[in-house]
Amino acid sequence: KNKARLLIHCPDQPGIVSAVSEFLYQQGANIIESNQYTTDPAGGEFFMRLVFEAEQLPAIKEELEKNFQAIAQSFQMDWRLSYVYQIKRMAIFVSKELHCLRELLWEWQSGDLIADIPLVISNHEDAREIVESLGIPFYHIPANKDIRKQVEAKQLELLKEFDIDVIVLARYMQILTPDFVAANRNKIINIHHSFLPAFVGANPYERAYQRGVKLIGATSHFVTDELDEGPIIEQDISRVDHRDNSQAMKKIGQSIERSVLARAVKWQLEDRIIVHQNKTIVF
Amino acid sequence: KNKARLLIHCPDQPGIVSAVSEFLYQQGANIIESNQYTTDPAGGEFFMRLVFEAEQLPAIKEELEKNFQAIAQSFQMDWRLSYVYQIKRMAIFVSKELHCLRELLWEWQSGDLIADIPLVISNHEDAREIVESLGIPFYHIPANKDIRKQVEAKQLELLKEFDIDVIVLARYMQILTPDFVAANRNKIINIHHSFLPAFVGANPYERAYQRGVKLIGATSHFVTDELDEGPIIEQDISRVDHRDNSQAMKKIGQSIERSVLARAVKWQLEDRIIVHQNKTIVF
Amino acid sequence: KNKARLLIHCPDQPGIVSAVSEFLYQQGANIIESNQYTTDPAGGEFFMRLVFEAEQLPAIKEELEKNFQAIAQSFQMDWRLSYVYQIKRMAIFVSKELHCLRELLWEWQSGDLIADIPLVISNHEDAREIVESLGIPFYHIPANKDIRKQVEAKQLELLKEFDIDVIVLARYMQILTPDFVAANRNKIINIHHSFLPAFVGANPYERAYQRGVKLIGATSHFVTDELDEGPIIEQDISRVDHRDNSQAMKKIGQSIERSVLARAVKWQLEDRIIVHQNKTIVF
Amino acid sequence: KNKARLLIHCPDQPGIVSAVSEFLYQQGANIIESNQYTTDPAGGEFFMRLVFEAEQLPAIKEELEKNFQAIAQSFQMDWRLSYVYQIKRMAIFVSKELHCLRELLWEWQSGDLIADIPLVISNHEDAREIVESLGIPFYHIPANKDIRKQVEAKQLELLKEFDIDVIVLARYMQILTPDFVAANRNKIINIHHSFLPAFVGANPYERAYQRGVKLIGATSHFVTDELDEGPIIEQDISRVDHRDNSQAMKKIGQSIERSVLARAVKWQLEDRIIVHQNKTIVF
Repeated sequence: KNKARLLIHCPDQPGIVSAVSEFLYQQGANIIESNQYTTDPAGGEFFMRLVFEAEQLPAIKEELEKNFQAIAQSFQMDWRLSYVYQIKRMAIFVSKELHCLRELLWEWQSGDLIADIPLVISNHEDAREIVESLGIPFYHIPANKDIRKQVEAKQLELLKEFDIDVIVLARYMQILTPDFVAANRNKIINIHHSFLPAFVGANPYERAYQRGVKLIGATSHFVTDELDEGPIIEQDISRVDHRDNSQAMKKIGQSIERSVLARAVKWQLEDRIIVHQNKTIVF
Repeated sequence: KNKARLLIHCPDQPGIVSAVSEFLYQQGANIIESNQYTTDPAGGEFFMRLVFEAEQLPAIKEELEKNFQAIAQSFQMDWRLSYVYQIKRMAIFVSKELHCLRELLWEWQSGDLIADIPLVISNHEDAREIVESLGIPFYHIPANKDIRKQVEAKQLELLKEFDIDVIVLARYMQILTPDFVAANRNKIINIHHSFLPAFVGANPYERAYQRGVKLIGATSHFVTDELDEGPIIEQDISRVDHRDNSQAMKKIGQSIERSVLARAVKWQLEDRIIVHQNKTIVF
Repeated sequence: KNKARLLIHCPDQPGIVSAVSEFLYQQGANIIESNQYTTDPAGGEFFMRLVFEAEQLPAIKEELEKNFQAIAQSFQMDWRLSYVYQIKRMAIFVSKELHCLRELLWEWQSGDLIADIPLVISNHEDAREIVESLGIPFYHIPANKDIRKQVEAKQLELLKEFDIDVIVLARYMQILTPDFVAANRNKIINIHHSFLPAFVGANPYERAYQRGVKLIGATSHFVTDELDEGPIIEQDISRVDHRDNSQAMKKIGQSIERSVLARAVKWQLEDRIIVHQNKTIVF
Repeated sequence: KNKARLLIHCPDQPGIVSAVSEFLYQQGANIIESNQYTTDPAGGEFFMRLVFEAEQLPAIKEELEKNFQAIAQSFQMDWRLSYVYQIKRMAIFVSKELHCLRELLWEWQSGDLIADIPLVISNHEDAREIVESLGIPFYHIPANKDIRKQVEAKQLELLKEFDIDVIVLARYMQILTPDFVAANRNKIINIHHSFLPAFVGANPYERAYQRGVKLIGATSHFVTDELDEGPIIEQDISRVDHRDNSQAMKKIGQSIERSVLARAVKWQLEDRIIVHQNKTIVF
């Protein structure tokens, strides 16, 4: 395809939209979608996502990027250009609960998640059958606190070997080290089974039941060094009542986890997310 | 204030965003918000809403509009410029049920609906007290099918006298004639107490109860000649179950009607709505 | 297990709850759940669902039923006793779109839908692989308007052979004859891809798009002779906006269809639904 | 009216429903609604709410209660009988933000909240006009940390003088002392402007904005000594996105606060809530 997505972040000032759209017009590109957000028109931060189409895009790609440098510099832009024809490569990490993995594979099969999935990594064998039945290589890497370093070394090697762009923790119940996180900044999407910041940490459904909440939820977020404190991408909730014990909450919650994680991954694959100061702008 | 909103509709083609943003930049205007939508990048319809800020806007307004003509013509634009400092003038029509009127007045009092309300018109006396207690003139114009023409003549006169921009039918239970509608095209916002197109016409809650639906809803839309067939602006629903008879549905529904109408009116006052082929684009 | 569910429907009058609960107590049964609803305490219809537990239930089942006859007669009850240990037998009909089938099979695999699934019937081959991979017999019975009678004869034979209690139309796009429906009264659950009564019939997403609705939905209902007019079991909706064309609505809608149908089927398997005058009471 | 509501809590064991319904039948009462819940059929806690109708209820009230004692004792019941003709008496506490007060008064005026409101208490003058315009006495009692004891002494005196059953903190921004709470156990309903347990304490919208959540919410709960830790009655949420700053969240949140508090108060007035171990059972 001849489509690309341009993500921009810079200090706000007059003339940004004009300069960028003029540039794209000069390059023969047609803007299809455009979203912008500014934290404050006077002295704030400016964010924009543009989708454009240009004939022979793969051929003119390099020149386009080179030419854009001048504009980018004059406005002090952080920017990123993604080409729709360059399919993103996604690795999925999973443990024993497979509902999130299944949802992702399903959406992938039906063409709703546009990505290559070169591998699935798990610390258990439970997911092997479903993964391999779809022709995806499955790597069983047992893990626990004591061997974390070795485990992550193997994982990082695989991620590198397969040139992975997005890592999805589809209920992977292991904590990652700061080194692993640092090596994959804003690349790791986790699903936490509570509406954060409520019930950070272990056993959120049990604790939700103990607290007697009337809503339970799920949160997908980028992983940072602080457990469950990374930038939130998407959240949703479902109603529960006094008849729902923690087991029932878990069942209800699984359905929310599935859809919340699938939405977050989809947005990441479509380059809709910009991280800024531990928050996300989702265009 | 120095803010204005520019709404554009034209055939899609490359260069629109560039031309418009370049123009605004030349005029010293800073784009604060921008939304666009195209039905099809190749040969479709293009829609855009821009909010911009310019110093001394009231002073340069006329020249700005004149200068924009050239661009507008070259792209065959339908366009509209609204100035935030020109507060819109809103008339509310109501009958005996006051919940929607109350919600609007409440939002208006608390500053969430930015409008002048020079008058409320009703075919009953029920709303007089609440309206006059806020210092708003109240006009009681009895109405029924047989005197529709005379009634509307009086109403049109008042609308003209008070220079009204937006007419809100806040549960005004009279049908308007094609003449009245034609004189106020895309200016009249109605609230219908069902999720259209279900239950067009009278007694939607009673019919919802008879049909045994598990959801009831409300729809705000622009009024056209076809009853309840105008462009939908906003809809919402609430759950009901077998214990809710039509009376209970009515109570539950009133809360949806209030919020759905208030949102639609707010969007209209903020120039967020473009009507196209019996649908709305809401930016 | 020693659990059973008792569904009752009779004219309302004082003493029903007392008589039934006294009876169960005498039989050594402990009431675990109880729900009741009356359309009108004075001269209305009374509905109740009780879940009870009794030791050695399979052994005392027949006597229990015989003894209950006296009470049932004195209150003119319609009633039904289901035993949790008698797993219901469910047939799934499907065409080419598999998302609803998949959801049901998934919930079934994970133990959320307690049923036996002795067969899946389809007029296409698309579902064969997924169905047979789970060890469920798959019957391909091509169908069209002209051979409806012969097709249904085969289907009815299979339903009889496999002693089917519940028929789920998981996006089976054929219309059933009155004879087929009559032979399976209140046994056939369909999923319609709109929030009924809006968009009865074909192509609801296309028509929803044309109408410009801001919500789309799905409805599960029992099948009757009137197309899409049977008793509604469950409905849900999702927001859409002007950017969603009918294709996008279809994608969004599939997720609603999945969950709405799965809930309806679950409730039917748990004997939670009583049909009364083309409506459902869902306890 | 001849209606009453019976709330029961006792250890679960066979025969409770039978004994209670048999008793009511003997007394000539007709059960209109019935809900029950058990934490565990074997050795758990049993909860029930019954609504019944009996002729001449005010006249037979005392004997009914006396006769019920025997059953209550044999099953070790906590129980409460409320008579619909004895309208509950509700005091509202408010500070400067009036949206929750307004919603309650509105629902009260339109007959949706059945209660007497003998007084509104505030530490500010803002609410005086709206309260007195409805003929409700308004008490201005300035409050701050240093004079908490004296303030509460005055408040308790008023509550006693007016024989108050329900105290609603409709955004009353003062912390109550353990003595005040102890004197009104399970009688004080608060609205907190977050989905608890997220954002306990001050400035929840500001903190929600800082954390970058995609949902904001409100929680109504009974007040206990632990700040924002009391039994949750009702919660709801609304979506926000990156464009919503804390001010926008506050506006959106006010609408949730209004409906969540109104529902909780309604349920309390209808005797639908049983508190058990810092949780609520809401029938």
